[in-house]
Amino acid sequence: MNIRPLGDRVVLKRVEAEETTKGGIILATTTKEKPQEAEVMAVGPGGVVEGKEVTMQVKVGERVLFSKYAGTEIKLDGIEYIVVRQDEILAVIDK
Amino acid sequence: MNIRPLGDRVVLKRVEAEETTKGGIILATTTKEKPQEAEVMAVGPGGVVEGKEVTMQVKVGERVLFSKYAGTEIKLDGIEYIVVRQDEILAVIDK
Amino acid sequence: MNIRPLGDRVVLKRVEAEETTKGGIILATTTKEKPQEAEVMAVGPGGVVEGKEVTMQVKVGERVLFSKYAGTEIKLDGIEYIVVRQDEILAVIDK
Amino acid sequence: MNIRPLGDRVVLKRVEAEETTKGGIILATTTKEKPQEAEVMAVGPGGVVEGKEVTMQVKVGERVLFSKYAGTEIKLDGIEYIVVRQDEILAVIDK
Amino acid sequence: MNIRPLGDRVVLKRVEAEETTKGGIILATTTKEKPQEAEVMAVGPGGVVEGKEVTMQVKVGERVLFSKYAGTEIKLDGIEYIVVRQDEILAVIDK
Amino acid sequence: MNIRPLGDRVVLKRVEAEETTKGGIILATTTKEKPQEAEVMAVGPGGVVEGKEVTMQVKVGERVLFSKYAGTEIKLDGIEYIVVRQDEILAVIDK
Amino acid sequence: MNIRPLGDRVVLKRVEAEETTKGGIILATTTKEKPQEAEVMAVGPGGVVEGKEVTMQVKVGERVLFSKYAGTEIKLDGIEYIVVRQDEILAVIDK
Repeated sequence: MNIRPLGDRVVLKRVEAEETTKGGIILATTTKEKPQEAEVMAVGPGGVVEGKEVTMQVKVGERVLFSKYAGTEIKLDGIEYIVVRQDEILAVIDK
Repeated sequence: MNIRPLGDRVVLKRVEAEETTKGGIILATTTKEKPQEAEVMAVGPGGVVEGKEVTMQVKVGERVLFSKYAGTEIKLDGIEYIVVRQDEILAVIDK
Repeated sequence: MNIRPLGDRVVLKRVEAEETTKGGIILATTTKEKPQEAEVMAVGPGGVVEGKEVTMQVKVGERVLFSKYAGTEIKLDGIEYIVVRQDEILAVIDK
Repeated sequence: MNIRPLGDRVVLKRVEAEETTKGGIILATTTKEKPQEAEVMAVGPGGVVEGKEVTMQVKVGERVLFSKYAGTEIKLDGIEYIVVRQDEILAVIDK
Repeated sequence: MNIRPLGDRVVLKRVEAEETTKGGIILATTTKEKPQEAEVMAVGPGGVVEGKEVTMQVKVGERVLFSKYAGTEIKLDGIEYIVVRQDEILAVIDK
Repeated sequence: MNIRPLGDRVVLKRVEAEETTKGGIILATTTKEKPQEAEVMAVGPGGVVEGKEVTMQVKVGERVLFSKYAGTEIKLDGIEYIVVRQDEILAVIDK
Repeated sequence: MNIRPLGDRVVLKRVEAEETTKGGIILATTTKEKPQEAEVMAVGPGGVVEGKEVTMQVKVGERVLFSKYAGTEIKLDGIEYIVVRQDEILAVIDK
């Protein structure tokens, strides 16, 4: 990727709902704030963000759950990505 | 479990209301914000969360009370889980 | 008790209004936010709470005044308790 | 008094409007947020309050001005008191 | 004066609009939040206020500009004073 | 000038829109929050402001851009000035 | 440029939507908060901003994505610029 996120930002590529992970996670459909599954595409350097030291805990290629309403969508070569802050990522799904 | 929560997040599995704990805790039904009983399924690493050092105080397998409206629901292999921040857990029920 | 509060939380058992303390405290009835008298049943460990060091200042068995609207109610063996943060306790009534 | 305020809290006894202080202070009647004159009855230990070091600056017996809408009222032996945080006290009236 | 402000509070005596300062300052009449000119009557000790070190920068006798809506009014010997926090003072008018 | 701003405050004199700077800056007219061009007339000492160390970065005589809705207007010898906090200044226009 | 941003502010020049970057980024059109692509024209010195140490991570000449609603527009020699805080920049687009 040609995009380099600043601070604690992470670039995600949403994983389609049809696609099932090895861990078999399926997103709940009964709650209003549904978490979203995505793949990590690019990770910011962390460091001091808003005056606080942030260590990045996710890596490129990992699957993560993040809040549906988090982040900003961008498009690269026709593919949609989402830029979120690391704190908006709930969990990593180990495979 | 195949899910690894970030920061101070904790993955909980709700305990059914019919099920009674050893300590005999029954959730109050007269207040609007009812605490919920759950089992801890996965615990984040803690560390610096929003610039503040957080030490995790709950362990996998413990029973906890948490606020009903806290957290985000996810589904894994057909079972619902809730991802909460540790601060949203009120107390551990020792058995 | 079988309940272990987290952080700066305190488990209280409300003292009935009919019951009079040695110090003769009677709760005011003319203000909207009436303080409540209660007995301390369990005390969290304190420590770092939301990034701030908290030392617990109340002990099991003490009588305290707390804001009526503070905390979350729970039931244990048919008895109602309230889980509050220590900061929601106004004062200890020495006997 | 049998009441021991926590943290930076101060127990005050309101001074009647009819009563005039040596300094001759009379509360303004034209503003909406009228300060109240009161006597300090009990003073918390101070220390770390919400993660910040607080040194108590008022003493039992002093006359103080505090905001009318501050604090919580309690009754002890039929007398009304107000529990305020020290920061809600505007000034001490030296006599 | 017999009044001793706490923390970073300052007691001011409003200067009448008719009265002109040496510097010739006249308050603007076209803005909604008009600054007010006043004389400093008493200054708190400063020190740690809400967990932050505050050094007092105004002295008794100085002329200052402060926001019209800041502070609490009190009356002493029939004269109105305003108790403000030092941060609500915009500037000192040197004479 | 006879006015000495407190803390991180800066006294500005608005530059008329007709007047063009050497750098040729003309304020945008299509956005709602138009920046304003002004000359720095007086600069506070900086230091600890609201518990945070502030170093003053503007000097008397410099041209600056600031947000239209920032600050408080005052009048001195018939001329209008604006008192802003340094953080409300967007940029210095070098000449 | 003759403009020197203060603190963590950055002066950007918007890149027209028609213009395609080497990385082929095209802004999403389906979300409400569209990121904007821009070139960095001037960078503030960083340092302590609102009491927090900020290190500048962007350089003059870099392409960046920033939130559409961020910043303040200014005009210089007939060209529109946007003054944003560095934290409002989502990512750098490496070319």
